[in-house]
Amino acid sequence: MSLDTDSSGKPHERLADFLRDDLAAVDRLIRERMASEHAPRIPEVTAHLVDAGGKRVRPMLTLAAARLCGYEGDNHHKLAATVEFIHTATLLHDDVVDESGQRRGRPTANLLWDNKSSVLVGDYLFARSFQLMTATGSLKVLDILADAAATIAEGEVLQLTAAANLATTEDIYLKVVRGKTAALFAAAAEVGGVIADVDEAKIEALRTYGDALGIAFQIADDLLDYGGDTTATGKNLGDDFRERKLTLPVIKAVAKADEDERTFWQRTIEKGDQREGDLDQALSLIAKHGTMDETRSHALGWSSKAKDALEVLPGHELREMLSDLADYVVARIS
Amino acid sequence: MSLDTDSSGKPHERLADFLRDDLAAVDRLIRERMASEHAPRIPEVTAHLVDAGGKRVRPMLTLAAARLCGYEGDNHHKLAATVEFIHTATLLHDDVVDESGQRRGRPTANLLWDNKSSVLVGDYLFARSFQLMTATGSLKVLDILADAAATIAEGEVLQLTAAANLATTEDIYLKVVRGKTAALFAAAAEVGGVIADVDEAKIEALRTYGDALGIAFQIADDLLDYGGDTTATGKNLGDDFRERKLTLPVIKAVAKADEDERTFWQRTIEKGDQREGDLDQALSLIAKHGTMDETRSHALGWSSKAKDALEVLPGHELREMLSDLADYVVARIS
Repeated sequence: MSLDTDSSGKPHERLADFLRDDLAAVDRLIRERMASEHAPRIPEVTAHLVDAGGKRVRPMLTLAAARLCGYEGDNHHKLAATVEFIHTATLLHDDVVDESGQRRGRPTANLLWDNKSSVLVGDYLFARSFQLMTATGSLKVLDILADAAATIAEGEVLQLTAAANLATTEDIYLKVVRGKTAALFAAAAEVGGVIADVDEAKIEALRTYGDALGIAFQIADDLLDYGGDTTATGKNLGDDFRERKLTLPVIKAVAKADEDERTFWQRTIEKGDQREGDLDQALSLIAKHGTMDETRSHALGWSSKAKDALEVLPGHELREMLSDLADYVVARIS
Repeated sequence: MSLDTDSSGKPHERLADFLRDDLAAVDRLIRERMASEHAPRIPEVTAHLVDAGGKRVRPMLTLAAARLCGYEGDNHHKLAATVEFIHTATLLHDDVVDESGQRRGRPTANLLWDNKSSVLVGDYLFARSFQLMTATGSLKVLDILADAAATIAEGEVLQLTAAANLATTEDIYLKVVRGKTAALFAAAAEVGGVIADVDEAKIEALRTYGDALGIAFQIADDLLDYGGDTTATGKNLGDDFRERKLTLPVIKAVAKADEDERTFWQRTIEKGDQREGDLDQALSLIAKHGTMDETRSHALGWSSKAKDALEVLPGHELREMLSDLADYVVARIS
């Protein structure tokens, strides 16, 4: 690895490269705070998830935002670890909720241990994240992250009630997406600016960037579920359809459905009576109404919004990487 | 109900009577913060828990501590609601059924729904509690509650790993008890003193009181599981034995077991092979070694410690009620 950033590399890899000392400090902090003297089950469960790694996009947003705003202290490490803990906790709780067998190609924690461990270790991580952010001594940061936590939980509950419900609107979908993804992206970026103590316009820009990036990312993810390279998402084609989740390609197709098509959606999504060939039928209705293209242009619009937001921030190679990241999350669907 | 306190009534009822205006304000706050514009399932799930009421001991500890320390603002309402939200969230997460540990098949839709709601609504309440305490603007309060949340979660995980494990010591038992009960009692009382801005000795006294009260309460509860009036606990005699939980009467009996007795405990608790008459056998071993009496004297010791701690606090009828409460939690086993 070199400190020189390669502008042809993937933007999250360039960010990881640029921020590698910061990321190493965050990793140390995570490992230290995961430890539990009395309950060794805790690091066992979390190591499984944290080691699996993922791209660490959320902590990098915090680190990049803080650095881009000229921050020189070390509270950005605490906040980056906070954000990763919150993310890991929600993954643990999601695993219980979805009874999903796989995440990132590895068996989920709840199959290796049990539901109860997933819930309680998730709670422990929430508590740990809360200790970490309190240690920054910034009430504004606590405010932002408390609000994000509430939006995340509310979005997850909303997703529950929206599942298998054909009345789900694009508006509700957007709220679910904010809860699932964008709220933590937005908070992660925003708190980086807050601890750097920059002006309101820059903080607002970071928040808007994170929010729009998260929405673009999630819409792209949902789009790929109905077509495209599933290795990118780690899911199987049609998972959302089988799980009767209403995402944008289907919400839009339902809105345009004629009577026969509506009967089809009612049977497969509302009643959950799915048969051989139904996924193909769903894909052909989606194709017929062109809702993949419409969904794609939503995602591209949010990606543009994310990039535009960056303009008020200082010119800096980190800004370029963040901008490229907004392109990258939609590149897989372009 | 009258504002006059009746010194012959139960102490939690006298506290509720004395604090009724405060409690009404807390109830309003809870109802307001439970509301979710987008996810009506949230107040639905929480309402029955909060309405069921319980004795509201935790929020009353906060309110009583604040009043006893002469507090005049309204942050004690926020903190009392915070404490009740945290308690309700842990109850919801405790309800999560451990199905994947028990069986491989998919749970019934109904069971899955219950798990989903319990986890996510619990998370929402945690987030709401976090917003509420942040609104007090006191970093010290945040510190205390973040630590309590971590101790609670750690204790719950520890309880999972200690179950069915004959190597569980009295030390581990105490940590589990702190996580289950005493940590939140201690934090609830302590934050009342913190917002009243009294000196360290009084804050420490409130913390010690809450901690010792919680431990006394929990030991008494565990004792009643092996004898006494089960209507007080809402459990059936021997529930802990059947669930292979190691509580003080059994931990002490295991420590004194001869070889045959040890074989009995290994079969029933470690292996979970329980037969007709085993509970009676367990009860007779507990009687033989006199571990009910030993457990009782532990509980009484913690109750005394709670009362002693109150001495540095101002003379006040609330102090008497708190002292009587420490007697009351062990009265059912005396």
